Amino acid sequence: MKTTATFYHAGCPVCVEAEQSVAQALDPQRYNVEIVHLGDQAGRVAEAKAAGVKSVPAIVMNGQTFHINFGAAIEALG
Amino acid sequence: MKTTATFYHAGCPVCVEAEQSVAQALDPQRYNVEIVHLGDQAGRVAEAKAAGVKSVPAIVMNGQTFHINFGAAIEALG
Repeated sequence: MKTTATFYHAGCPVCVEAEQSVAQALDPQRYNVEIVHLGDQAGRVAEAKAAGVKSVPAIVMNGQTFHINFGAAIEALG
Repeated sequence: MKTTATFYHAGCPVCVEAEQSVAQALDPQRYNVEIVHLGDQAGRVAEAKAAGVKSVPAIVMNGQTFHINFGAAIEALG
């Protein structure tokens, strides 16, 4: 049986990168990935908060909430 | 052709949760997931830093570095 992984975002550039890389990389055999844009779906903000989402992008899966932060690679080059 | 996704961690509880949930959830048809414990493999710290890893757990995939933070769900209940 598939598990749902819910990816919350707000359209920010970091959100888009994380969605395209992490959320879309999940195994489709095991996960249904639901993408929720909290800017467009304000009615789901309460649900996200209840799941422990403090910032976006975040992914809620297996009963856990993971916040994703993009580390600017260019900083490592300085 | 498969892409390698490298998951850097240091054995912390958050690292273990993220590894078991996020890293292991990636599609095995598309990704080879390499798990690197920086505590045990100190020789790879420089490589991680060069990839933009600033904290663990982090996953480097598709040329991007994503830091993962576990949001304590209990805080949302208060």
